[in-house]
Amino acid sequence: MLKLLFGICVFALCSASLTAQEAFSRQDAVTQSGVQEGLCLVNTMHITASVFINDDERGLHQDYDKWLEALAPHEPTSQYQHNRTGEDNADAHMKRQIMGREVVVAISAGKLDFGPWEQIFYGEFDGRRAKRVLIKVLGD
Amino acid sequence: MLKLLFGICVFALCSASLTAQEAFSRQDAVTQSGVQEGLCLVNTMHITASVFINDDERGLHQDYDKWLEALAPHEPTSQYQHNRTGEDNADAHMKRQIMGREVVVAISAGKLDFGPWEQIFYGEFDGRRAKRVLIKVLGD
Amino acid sequence: MLKLLFGICVFALCSASLTAQEAFSRQDAVTQSGVQEGLCLVNTMHITASVFINDDERGLHQDYDKWLEALAPHEPTSQYQHNRTGEDNADAHMKRQIMGREVVVAISAGKLDFGPWEQIFYGEFDGRRAKRVLIKVLGD
Repeated sequence: MLKLLFGICVFALCSASLTAQEAFSRQDAVTQSGVQEGLCLVNTMHITASVFINDDERGLHQDYDKWLEALAPHEPTSQYQHNRTGEDNADAHMKRQIMGREVVVAISAGKLDFGPWEQIFYGEFDGRRAKRVLIKVLGD
Repeated sequence: MLKLLFGICVFALCSASLTAQEAFSRQDAVTQSGVQEGLCLVNTMHITASVFINDDERGLHQDYDKWLEALAPHEPTSQYQHNRTGEDNADAHMKRQIMGREVVVAISAGKLDFGPWEQIFYGEFDGRRAKRVLIKVLGD
Repeated sequence: MLKLLFGICVFALCSASLTAQEAFSRQDAVTQSGVQEGLCLVNTMHITASVFINDDERGLHQDYDKWLEALAPHEPTSQYQHNRTGEDNADAHMKRQIMGREVVVAISAGKLDFGPWEQIFYGEFDGRRAKRVLIKVLGD
């Protein structure tokens, strides 16, 4: 039988940057779904944010912040057409493309099948809204 | 019962850039499949193009074009080994890596489960061919 | 009936760069699974590496190497907080974000449903470990 789980997590962030990202294990959702073998999709529902997999190391997260700011600077905000709409977050739409919208993780024997250092993170590049993450589990 | 849909969309583009991207709702494919809960994969079948999710805002698309050109300039074409094969599109292979090949979207209650501003786009960085997008729906 | 395949490939790499990447067709895994219509996830299990889809062209791979080094330089290693932990691979964590962790490929009529030039590659940006790739097939 195919079993599915749909979940949305809502959480507020205290900062506009990756340093405020929250690691979350989606093992709870997988366990609730009862799926033993399958796929788990985790995506941000916001277009200035990212769900990605990397290391749970604070220095690295600071490096990401600095690096993304160099590749897509927030200032001057006038350099972006998008900001003429009354927004000032065009850079966040770019940072999110580099870091990615979603991850798809295998479920094996009822668990998220991670490599040794893999963890799922939420990266927020705008920071003005409470954010939601969608989790969808598909499998047997 | 597991239901699946396989679809390929073919369309021609009038421009080599993101400004020519075409937003498309894949809701039609999902509705045809009859899947209520599942996953929908949408990917470009071309290696100098991208399928990505972001905002339907013309200024932002112009910003992406300019930003990608700065990160992976087309000129001088001689800076890329790949262009010695007779191609001049090495930069397009790089732009595509930043923007991504595919998206995976949850299907909930028979609909693509989007956040408030999420839309699927096709980004073309070479522009010399009619392009195809593959849609695959998997679920229950 | 839902059929699933779980596979991990272990292989060692002779170089720290994309030029050492190994193309691999995952058709073997798909054939073994017996899945005719479905999805195939292929992801690296390491956070300084990438699984991506692009062209099997040596010059392009050299271009990627040079381009990624310009976007996220290895030297000076002291520019990254992460390297204060005793590592010197912060740049590899960034390169991997640009190239991506995973690909999801449709399976149609028992085969990986690729566009004309699509091939799956493993990109290694650190190079100090034998690497593993996870393959998960889900479908009917």
